[in-house]
Amino acid sequence: AAPHGFRALDCDSVRHYVAARPPLQQRVGPPASVDSWTVREVGDGNINFVFIVEGPAGALCIKQALPYVRCVGESWPLTQDRVRIETEALAEEAAVCPEHVPAVYLYDKAMCLIAMRYLAPPFIILRRGLVAGATYPRLAGHLAAFLASSLFHTSAIKLNTTAFRQKQAQFANDEMCRLTEQVIFTEPYIKADNNHWTSPQLDADVAALQSDVAAKVAVSRLKAAFVGQPQALLHGDLHTGSIMVTAEETAVIDPEFAFYGPIAFDVAKILANLLLCYFSLDGHEAAAGAGSRQAQREWLLATLRDTWTGFVAAFTRLWDAHGGAGDLYPAALAGPAGGPVLAALQADFFAQLWGETVAFMGAFVIRRLVGIAHVADMDSIADADTRAACERRALHFGRRMLVEAAAGFTSIEALAEAAVAARSA
Amino acid sequence: AAPHGFRALDCDSVRHYVAARPPLQQRVGPPASVDSWTVREVGDGNINFVFIVEGPAGALCIKQALPYVRCVGESWPLTQDRVRIETEALAEEAAVCPEHVPAVYLYDKAMCLIAMRYLAPPFIILRRGLVAGATYPRLAGHLAAFLASSLFHTSAIKLNTTAFRQKQAQFANDEMCRLTEQVIFTEPYIKADNNHWTSPQLDADVAALQSDVAAKVAVSRLKAAFVGQPQALLHGDLHTGSIMVTAEETAVIDPEFAFYGPIAFDVAKILANLLLCYFSLDGHEAAAGAGSRQAQREWLLATLRDTWTGFVAAFTRLWDAHGGAGDLYPAALAGPAGGPVLAALQADFFAQLWGETVAFMGAFVIRRLVGIAHVADMDSIADADTRAACERRALHFGRRMLVEAAAGFTSIEALAEAAVAARSA
Ligand SMILES: Nc1ncnc2c1ncn2[C@@H]1O[C@H](COP(=O)(O)OP(=O)(O)O)[C@@H](O)[C@H]1O
Ligand SMILES: Nc1ncnc2c1ncn2[C@@H]1O[C@H](COP(=O)(O)OP(=O)(O)O)[C@@H](O)[C@H]1O
Ligand SMILES: [Mg+2]
Ligand SMILES: [Mg+2]
Ligand SMILES: [Mg+2]
Ligand SMILES: [Mg+2]
Ligand SMILES: [Mg+2]
Repeated sequence: AAPHGFRALDCDSVRHYVAARPPLQQRVGPPASVDSWTVREVGDGNINFVFIVEGPAGALCIKQALPYVRCVGESWPLTQDRVRIETEALAEEAAVCPEHVPAVYLYDKAMCLIAMRYLAPPFIILRRGLVAGATYPRLAGHLAAFLASSLFHTSAIKLNTTAFRQKQAQFANDEMCRLTEQVIFTEPYIKADNNHWTSPQLDADVAALQSDVAAKVAVSRLKAAFVGQPQALLHGDLHTGSIMVTAEETAVIDPEFAFYGPIAFDVAKILANLLLCYFSLDGHEAAAGAGSRQAQREWLLATLRDTWTGFVAAFTRLWDAHGGAGDLYPAALAGPAGGPVLAALQADFFAQLWGETVAFMGAFVIRRLVGIAHVADMDSIADADTRAACERRALHFGRRMLVEAAAGFTSIEALAEAAVAARSA
Repeated sequence: AAPHGFRALDCDSVRHYVAARPPLQQRVGPPASVDSWTVREVGDGNINFVFIVEGPAGALCIKQALPYVRCVGESWPLTQDRVRIETEALAEEAAVCPEHVPAVYLYDKAMCLIAMRYLAPPFIILRRGLVAGATYPRLAGHLAAFLASSLFHTSAIKLNTTAFRQKQAQFANDEMCRLTEQVIFTEPYIKADNNHWTSPQLDADVAALQSDVAAKVAVSRLKAAFVGQPQALLHGDLHTGSIMVTAEETAVIDPEFAFYGPIAFDVAKILANLLLCYFSLDGHEAAAGAGSRQAQREWLLATLRDTWTGFVAAFTRLWDAHGGAGDLYPAALAGPAGGPVLAALQADFFAQLWGETVAFMGAFVIRRLVGIAHVADMDSIADADTRAACERRALHFGRRMLVEAAAGFTSIEALAEAAVAARSA
């Protein structure tokens, strides 16, 4: 049930909502101008409503959660506490990397809404930019910085375990986690009404996946990690549709799935979505001409590599600087930065993380080809046979990542090379 | 600060406390008999006070927590919420294996006390029985059953993840976990005032441990698992001093450290304490005569093996019967008991668990030789050189388990054989 005082907004009532709240109203325009303000509902996500309110003084963004999943309707209820989670996660992220999250102007608990900075054009959803063929030279550096700071500062490497456990309780996000457990870690591997794929082209591939014992064992490990490995405050939904970009800037939005989980989950989700785009490019070239996406292809591979290596470097720098005061690897045990013990601890940590990241990447690739939610990167390939060829290569590569993990892919460079090979296979 | 209404009891006030509460009083004797009741404080643990009240009708046990650690005093404050944890953990255990926990008669929140069944002689603390040379043929079966049922039924193999997360929040036990993090996973590996060992005999061994990079990496992994791997409701302190036994019965007491953590922690703690006893036997034979502990030695090795194998068998039976309804390995993905998918999932689960169990065993052995709390098994060896010889063998074996884990010990049988070899090395 929605909280007392809740009502669902539409374009008209949003305007009055903003006009009635001076700190918001002032950002849009003087009271006399209210009738001239424009309001657009731009929510292209699956879950919530997003309104852009523009007037003579400027614009802002209002995101409201209804008590159900937008793209399904009232038959799929969903906790509105997700707005509190999103607000508090944005605050955690803003505390450590304000340059990569939209400023929040207001959180209205009863109305289940957030008013935040409007990321105006040229800001565009990264996935849309990628589908259109764009490249973003600063993206890898920004993603590495966002991942490292948001994950490090909420981990027990930085925090004492008391604070760590308190934050874990604060970000209890049961219903949203259940959604992930269902649609990412379960449904793609069984017969489920939500599943769909390019059919009949991929029917045999999907049948093989759903009777693949090794894949079921591997994805069950990942589900166990998702449910039982609180390591840091995750964004929880860090795909290319949760990132807005320009040539200069990168902003991460939509952390309503935030919770304490395995660090590899966030890292892998963005890498997997870059890889899905990579495997889609042959489909776009089929329509637009051979080689038309070659530069983007190379940039995507470089971004994949640089995001991982940049993340490891940035996380290590934070650990060197602040890890000694945290409870997991206290200075009394780990010794100083540059010393042999801390170096060995870090090597062990990143080796473990790499294996988990590869496996999670596999699960994220698979679920976007077989499960409930697909990606525009593939869906926008009009010809079904061409699309299926791209999806099949991605699906098989995803299965390999899921099952082989670090044993099959010894480094991010090796993984990128294997992706190149898989494309021409 | 203690709760409102709290007062520390002594032998005299305990009697009046019981007499004033009819449900307790009736178990001990009629009101007219109160002056004849005897009260003994028997707490030989380090943390709390335990009173036995006996009268003509029977006896009961009162355990009270003061707002500090008993053996240290007011300078080491400790949350009295540990009594709530102990009460609720006893209830969870009683729900699934009532035959192995004492019945609770009353929980008094304000007084921070539990009234429970008095485990009268011939019940004896297992560690004391072992030091005296006793064997308990039914122990392995009972431990296997207790471990399997308490751990399985509180895991997400059995539960849906919503219930799993709720129980995790219910058993938030921050201060007690901090204690474990400090005294088990940190202090033995650094210079710390709490540490002590048989000196000077073991000085070089301890110095080697404290500059052992591989040991620090391995114990840090375990600390990370302790802090960030909620898998089931653990007892949290399952050593041989938390178990009372007769020839026929086994009762597990003292779950005040209960929390959601890695299953291997509980399994390893009891196995490690059996192993510490094993390595102590040469010291007892040195005084009592060669071969005087040979039968106990063989029984200990058999108990070590049978506890692990019995635990795996019992946990598997529960999983086969109830796992399909849980969220981690739902029937829709895992298929039926006896089928190839569930068999593969279980093999993967126990392989992972075995490696973690060996490593935790190493940490538990080490901390009882070098850290704040030692074991009577070793301490009761009067001659320091003899004791040090036993402790050194245990310490080196503990280090091997910690660092090598599953790579060094491929099965419980291999581990038992290695212990035999380590003893005569
Ligand atoms: N701060 C913002 N500025 C500009 N556009 C935004 C902003 N927040 C969201 N949007 C737009 O709304 C869409 C949906 O927002 P999102 O937070 O992802 O909602 P959902 O939770 O439904 O996925 C985004 O894809 C983007 O186009
Ligand atoms: N129910 C009981 N029946 C008989 N003796 C008990 C009982 N509970 C505790 N004891 C005795 O009191 C001692 C300390 O109890 P325990 O619960 O381990 O306290 P602590 O938390 O201080 O370690 C035990 O070692 C045992 O000798
Ligand atoms: Mg979104
Ligand atoms: Mg969203
Ligand atoms: Mg005790
Ligand atoms: Mg205790
Ligand atoms: Mg000692």
